Amino acid sequence: MNNDKGNPARIQHGDLVLLSGHDRREFLVVMQTGAQFQTHRGYINHDDMIGNLWGSVVKTHLDYAYMLLPPSLEQLVRGVKRTTQIVYPKDIGYIIMKMNIGPGSRIVEAGTGSGGLTLALARMVMPHGHIYTYESRPEMLETAQKNLARLGLESYVTFTQRDIAEGFDERDADAVFLDVREPCDYLTQVHAALKGGGFFGALVPTTNQVSDLLAALAQHPFGFIQVDELLLRSYKPVPARLRPMDRMVAHTGYLIFGRALLAEESNDP
Amino acid sequence: MNNDKGNPARIQHGDLVLLSGHDRREFLVVMQTGAQFQTHRGYINHDDMIGNLWGSVVKTHLDYAYMLLPPSLEQLVRGVKRTTQIVYPKDIGYIIMKMNIGPGSRIVEAGTGSGGLTLALARMVMPHGHIYTYESRPEMLETAQKNLARLGLESYVTFTQRDIAEGFDERDADAVFLDVREPCDYLTQVHAALKGGGFFGALVPTTNQVSDLLAALAQHPFGFIQVDELLLRSYKPVPARLRPMDRMVAHTGYLIFGRALLAEESNDP
Amino acid sequence: MNNDKGNPARIQHGDLVLLSGHDRREFLVVMQTGAQFQTHRGYINHDDMIGNLWGSVVKTHLDYAYMLLPPSLEQLVRGVKRTTQIVYPKDIGYIIMKMNIGPGSRIVEAGTGSGGLTLALARMVMPHGHIYTYESRPEMLETAQKNLARLGLESYVTFTQRDIAEGFDERDADAVFLDVREPCDYLTQVHAALKGGGFFGALVPTTNQVSDLLAALAQHPFGFIQVDELLLRSYKPVPARLRPMDRMVAHTGYLIFGRALLAEESNDP
Amino acid sequence: MNNDKGNPARIQHGDLVLLSGHDRREFLVVMQTGAQFQTHRGYINHDDMIGNLWGSVVKTHLDYAYMLLPPSLEQLVRGVKRTTQIVYPKDIGYIIMKMNIGPGSRIVEAGTGSGGLTLALARMVMPHGHIYTYESRPEMLETAQKNLARLGLESYVTFTQRDIAEGFDERDADAVFLDVREPCDYLTQVHAALKGGGFFGALVPTTNQVSDLLAALAQHPFGFIQVDELLLRSYKPVPARLRPMDRMVAHTGYLIFGRALLAEESNDP
Repeated sequence: MNNDKGNPARIQHGDLVLLSGHDRREFLVVMQTGAQFQTHRGYINHDDMIGNLWGSVVKTHLDYAYMLLPPSLEQLVRGVKRTTQIVYPKDIGYIIMKMNIGPGSRIVEAGTGSGGLTLALARMVMPHGHIYTYESRPEMLETAQKNLARLGLESYVTFTQRDIAEGFDERDADAVFLDVREPCDYLTQVHAALKGGGFFGALVPTTNQVSDLLAALAQHPFGFIQVDELLLRSYKPVPARLRPMDRMVAHTGYLIFGRALLAEESNDP
Repeated sequence: MNNDKGNPARIQHGDLVLLSGHDRREFLVVMQTGAQFQTHRGYINHDDMIGNLWGSVVKTHLDYAYMLLPPSLEQLVRGVKRTTQIVYPKDIGYIIMKMNIGPGSRIVEAGTGSGGLTLALARMVMPHGHIYTYESRPEMLETAQKNLARLGLESYVTFTQRDIAEGFDERDADAVFLDVREPCDYLTQVHAALKGGGFFGALVPTTNQVSDLLAALAQHPFGFIQVDELLLRSYKPVPARLRPMDRMVAHTGYLIFGRALLAEESNDP
Repeated sequence: MNNDKGNPARIQHGDLVLLSGHDRREFLVVMQTGAQFQTHRGYINHDDMIGNLWGSVVKTHLDYAYMLLPPSLEQLVRGVKRTTQIVYPKDIGYIIMKMNIGPGSRIVEAGTGSGGLTLALARMVMPHGHIYTYESRPEMLETAQKNLARLGLESYVTFTQRDIAEGFDERDADAVFLDVREPCDYLTQVHAALKGGGFFGALVPTTNQVSDLLAALAQHPFGFIQVDELLLRSYKPVPARLRPMDRMVAHTGYLIFGRALLAEESNDP
Repeated sequence: MNNDKGNPARIQHGDLVLLSGHDRREFLVVMQTGAQFQTHRGYINHDDMIGNLWGSVVKTHLDYAYMLLPPSLEQLVRGVKRTTQIVYPKDIGYIIMKMNIGPGSRIVEAGTGSGGLTLALARMVMPHGHIYTYESRPEMLETAQKNLARLGLESYVTFTQRDIAEGFDERDADAVFLDVREPCDYLTQVHAALKGGGFFGALVPTTNQVSDLLAALAQHPFGFIQVDELLLRSYKPVPARLRPMDRMVAHTGYLIFGRALLAEESNDP
């Protein structure tokens, strides 16, 4: 944490640092006194980075330069070691806004996958909220746990290996998000975990899954259903020749949102 | 805050509640013992809502029903009393991801406008972070303060009435976001307020402003420049006839992001 | 037809003229010696327009000015008197490119609707091609016929009132385009009307219809299937403040294209 | 040309045929009695294709199969031998609709480039219209001429090697389209070539060029200015898993349209 009047912000033991090289390769490193950062371009002792100004440049023993940056949440998510498709940052940001995810929230998530969304949620609910994440594949859960631990966020997350057909352990959760193949199959379990008016969200890649989920939602006490998609278009940052990039990601998934209604109010919108 | 094992979540004194009517009209109300909520459809005593389950339905003395919901951050932003265009929730979510805004962040913002972005940022940096927001028009600043106070978020924000050409009071801020007409004019001030590697962001509506800002950024020690825009497309949530809505918002603004470089590293990317 | 060396182009008897007023209201008029154009802003004798330069301005007896313009095909389509949704010009242009519609083509179309697509196709296949259009609702067919006759294009079109479940009269058509509710129900009839390798196209508004049509196409000898949609984004034409319009049409329909395979070649892509 | 009652359509000497292989490689061939089509997968005598049904499959002497298809205009454009970026078919279709390009039109075009747009325009104005195309680079003009000649369309096009700053030879053209670096520099020349109310169009890749062109148009007698862009989104044609392709072309160019006003009417919209 910085301060208003004191000395400029310096990197400390325990800080998460993004080392950004001229070749645009980036590395996420947690500063630890006595440790060493190694790449094929040489090594740097953490002690030679700790105490430096944020934004300063350090060099490996092979004279290759890295800038020391605070990572964005987008960069943390993109930096996740993964064996599955991760949720895109553009979609995570929108999920946060639509599902009221912030400091103090208690969120249930399935499936964990590589933990990209899990880490973003954990970062957002700190320090008093909590994420309960479920994943049926043990090797995925292990990958996700490592990804969270690497960033020092594991204490904000409870990892459970389970087929969510068996239900969630939580009740009265603020929100439940499903990133699974058939979210339409688990709405009874989702509803049981949510508080009244709680937020439901899901991400699916195909229109058929959207239709299936909408049909299932109509059979359960959910309301305020919305379906959205976000398109991100990036521009070449050249002032005299401003234009969109030539190509873009055309599709990441459809986002479906709703609210848990109390059973007796289920005839509501 | 809810709990895992206890009784279901009930509305308490001090809670922020979204009252949602069948006519889709919505009201944001902070529960206060002894107070009364009034609409042209009748009144409800807060004491008849406090203690109710979240998601339950209450009726006015004229028998008009409202469902009691926790509001999403999107709904809070959309509910701001405004005299200016607010930043859209889709853009706010993306700004949060790109500028690492979360619990504990120290953020400088200008101009405050109606305070829509301010409230979203305040909600995100709780409880230990802080927002420093600047606005030259006193009546706007007052509107924004009222909007924040209504949601109980004013303690997380310092409001300053000032032309930002005079500079910001903060140093070593984690991020600075500009939603002003000519962000290209204030980059010296922005840089002075940011810590090394700190996040710069701006929102502008026209391509000419994007070009001007990109040209100015090239004259100051900033790097890692990106220009993005987000398109939100919503679908009619009908399972057997799934299709996009007929019309959509085609443009809210271009988002420009960058990082403050230390002056001596300004030849960096 | 104009010429290279002679006098500038002047409006003649029989020409189709777009009268464009300052209030942005536009009228399509076929010039006829002795006729009179009447609006609530006054009248103009056709004889006072015939012989004028294209682009000149004439005034009604109430002194209201109209510019005399050659209409674009887009304007002709938009000017159709309609009781149904018309195919959008952006989609028609793409259909023309994908289905090889041009001078000489023989095209089968159903349903005719208000005739917007019919007139664009007729205009494109002149003078030696022909459009065969089918519509089950007699009042729609009549509307379409009037729309085509008004533009002098009726001789390029054969109108048939029929439920296309009964089949088309044509064989060896270059292309068949369906703008009907359930195109998936008529693929046998479509295939019978097409020449080998001929072009099939359809426009449907929902994803469910796309899926149904794709499933049906897989059961018939069609190949080279593609599904596309086009988004048109318009900009405010202000050089110093260039930006997209605030709102846009978000959806007109999904376009599905394929080729008729010879039955014995149906195992092809 | 096909017929309604007679025998099914067969390939004839002079026809343009798209040979489509299983590997999705495609070849455009004009059928010529006695000629031979050769690929690295073997040869086929044209005489073994002439007389075949459209849509039939023929094999090379190495037993590799090709389906014989009528090419779409999109495929002709994509098949152009090119050393420059071609205008995309989605944009060409829209240009046709907006600029009233069809049978009989007299169109001026610059620069010719590889001739992709030229060939589409030539195909559309047949048999009585004409394209006048200008290009300053002789080697480009030669490439374009070959591309048009290969398709038998050269008689509909007049090719001129010239810097268009020197002006066009035509007067009273129906439309002028510019695909050059600085269209803003040639508006006097464009206006001189157009008939009153004639169609002007241009394609430019950057927002700066759009602004420059809009500013220049305001200095010349043009009206009815519009700026558009088209986004093409394609879907995976799988009925049970319908979804957009993962990536798409994000930008091809901005389209600017206007109308030539008579000089004395230049105060018009």
